[in-house]
Amino acid sequence: MQMSKRISSFQASPIRRLVPYSREAERKGIHVIHLNIGQPDIKTPAEALDAVHSYNEPYIAYGLSEGEVSLRQGLCAYYKKYNCDISPDEIMITTGGSEALQFVFMTLCDPYDEVIIPEPFYTNVSTFAATAMVNLVPVTSQIDDAFVLPSISEFESRISKKTMAILLCSPNNPTGHVYTRDELKDLLELCRRHDIFLIVDEVYREFCYDGQEFTSVLTFPEYGERIICIDSFSKRYSMCGARIGAIVSHNKDVLSSAMKLAQARLCPPAIEQVAACAALTAPDEYIKAVREEYERRRNLLVSGIQEIPGCKVSRPKGAFYFVVDFPIDDAEKFSVFMLRDFSYEGNTVMFAPAEDFYVTKHLGKTQARIAYVLNEEELRLAVKCLEEGLKAYRKKCCIQ
Amino acid sequence: MQMSKRISSFQASPIRRLVPYSREAERKGIHVIHLNIGQPDIKTPAEALDAVHSYNEPYIAYGLSEGEVSLRQGLCAYYKKYNCDISPDEIMITTGGSEALQFVFMTLCDPYDEVIIPEPFYTNVSTFAATAMVNLVPVTSQIDDAFVLPSISEFESRISKKTMAILLCSPNNPTGHVYTRDELKDLLELCRRHDIFLIVDEVYREFCYDGQEFTSVLTFPEYGERIICIDSFSKRYSMCGARIGAIVSHNKDVLSSAMKLAQARLCPPAIEQVAACAALTAPDEYIKAVREEYERRRNLLVSGIQEIPGCKVSRPKGAFYFVVDFPIDDAEKFSVFMLRDFSYEGNTVMFAPAEDFYVTKHLGKTQARIAYVLNEEELRLAVKCLEEGLKAYRKKCCIQ
Repeated sequence: MQMSKRISSFQASPIRRLVPYSREAERKGIHVIHLNIGQPDIKTPAEALDAVHSYNEPYIAYGLSEGEVSLRQGLCAYYKKYNCDISPDEIMITTGGSEALQFVFMTLCDPYDEVIIPEPFYTNVSTFAATAMVNLVPVTSQIDDAFVLPSISEFESRISKKTMAILLCSPNNPTGHVYTRDELKDLLELCRRHDIFLIVDEVYREFCYDGQEFTSVLTFPEYGERIICIDSFSKRYSMCGARIGAIVSHNKDVLSSAMKLAQARLCPPAIEQVAACAALTAPDEYIKAVREEYERRRNLLVSGIQEIPGCKVSRPKGAFYFVVDFPIDDAEKFSVFMLRDFSYEGNTVMFAPAEDFYVTKHLGKTQARIAYVLNEEELRLAVKCLEEGLKAYRKKCCIQ
Repeated sequence: MQMSKRISSFQASPIRRLVPYSREAERKGIHVIHLNIGQPDIKTPAEALDAVHSYNEPYIAYGLSEGEVSLRQGLCAYYKKYNCDISPDEIMITTGGSEALQFVFMTLCDPYDEVIIPEPFYTNVSTFAATAMVNLVPVTSQIDDAFVLPSISEFESRISKKTMAILLCSPNNPTGHVYTRDELKDLLELCRRHDIFLIVDEVYREFCYDGQEFTSVLTFPEYGERIICIDSFSKRYSMCGARIGAIVSHNKDVLSSAMKLAQARLCPPAIEQVAACAALTAPDEYIKAVREEYERRRNLLVSGIQEIPGCKVSRPKGAFYFVVDFPIDDAEKFSVFMLRDFSYEGNTVMFAPAEDFYVTKHLGKTQARIAYVLNEEELRLAVKCLEEGLKAYRKKCCIQ
């Protein structure tokens, strides 16, 4: 039987291809340190878990398609802390940031429309674009420039009649770059000139380091109509499995169009919304402690890897990822080697080859994305494994 | 700014258009009896709620994209009761039956491919088809024939090179028809001849009345490769807000294609999966009691409405909906009247105009879908309201 070509032609991403190797290593008793995924080991706020434990409904009923009122009100109070003036009807709760991205692509774009995006970028965006039949048009940001925003003229040169929006992620997954107020302002001005949208995924908002201030795109009310912010509880409150995200916009047409999609899928998960609403009441110290913990982890892992001969790292300013350029031929081959052929005192490391984070062919081939969500002991061990693994791989491949 | 035409051109469905009238009636203190939605007032199994209360993880982590192993194993044991031999790797857990339908459309169809569907059908299927750019090709089932499967030759006449599948819902929402073994067999044979898929939404499986046996499409292993079953915990365990559904198929290519979509959105909600897994351990008496309760409600409401002069009802054999043909000009106008201009002793009734359940223009204009998920007292009151409301509406419109 025939099936859809648009889906069957998707390549499994390198990370997916690596999973069998990682499972096999674990079967052999090797401890695999997972730097490949952003699954934190930080506790969810007690407030959220308590709310789950005392869930008090006789039946788990459909909620509002746009999400529960109390949750949207809670989010408004939360945005106030970032000087963002948002009302509950400017928020749509979604099933994770994933659904938010899908709804936004579908809402803004017809098939073959284009969205411009700095690469490297969060790889699942490719799938959401493909299912919506949206073409992603990349502008390459460079590891040697610390992945700052490429020049506005580069963005401008990519704008066509088909361009509906520019999509950013700040703080950035995978690069760790935090876009500055000036960068955002320049982009917004470009969007205004060409009458297109700016979509900013801010799910790592809390995680900015070295005292750097975060600038939300929602603090530019003068461009309000063309701004769409993607949000999520997953990383902020270490509740990735809850699948609670949001679309935030002053643009009522965007929200009412997205609402048609939201109504068809009925509502976001009910109990997880209760958990999310309670998470918002966690004291500010919770987030502060989490940020400090990630900052320590970043310092440890970045310094450790920077000291490995030949490794190039762009020191991340936010989120909990960075990109490393390895002194090798192919990061995926190196990863297979680490999982299949190598271990150091019973340990090895898994990371995400970065090729998938680029649209442009052949870019990122020697790069990997590293997540630093694990505890310091694991991270120290990871550095040692990587150092020894690199030596062994280079020797095996006769890389001088 | 421009936005997507595929979404902005969607018409809000009659039910959505009616919501403001219903809210306004409630603001005026009128008790609106909601026969328009399938939100049961039945308790979720204690096992499911207990599992939520004792959720014992320190953080709500990402789960497997295909759903938790324990939940898929639990489902296999459940399917065994229906003589369906399913293994855990033939199940993908989805965020509700809604996501299951979306994944299946995307997996089977490229843009402008076709899926044949008997009308009237569950209206949100239209949105899922539209977002996947799939054309729904209707075959009309008739209220005067109790909404049985239209003839195989009618289906066959709709098959083109673009046809990828036939989609059924059994027991049917909105008609209440339960497709017989012979009907399914004939359709499967047709699908085999034309090498297309049969998708069957069986989320109301438990709710068959008058002692009628339910036949699952999964009991035809000889056609296994071309069968896709859509399932959900929403109605079975009165946990609509949990958003836990499933795709079940012996076809490994379908599941591995759908897996690419599943991986992009990461995982279904975590806590709700724990609830669903526990719901499967509820004693059979739970489901039996719920079915008996719905059967009593059906008997009451169907008899009540059949006795209203001029109302034509096709007695439903399953699910918890039926279609009524009112002796009026326009079911949506009648519904607006009921909500805006009418009340009986402080009560009125909201129902779903059926026009939206048809693709073919102008069909179903005098029909409505009625859900009988409320308690008997409410249903008795609903019958009285409908009877008086009809009299008043016909008088106002001078219908003889």
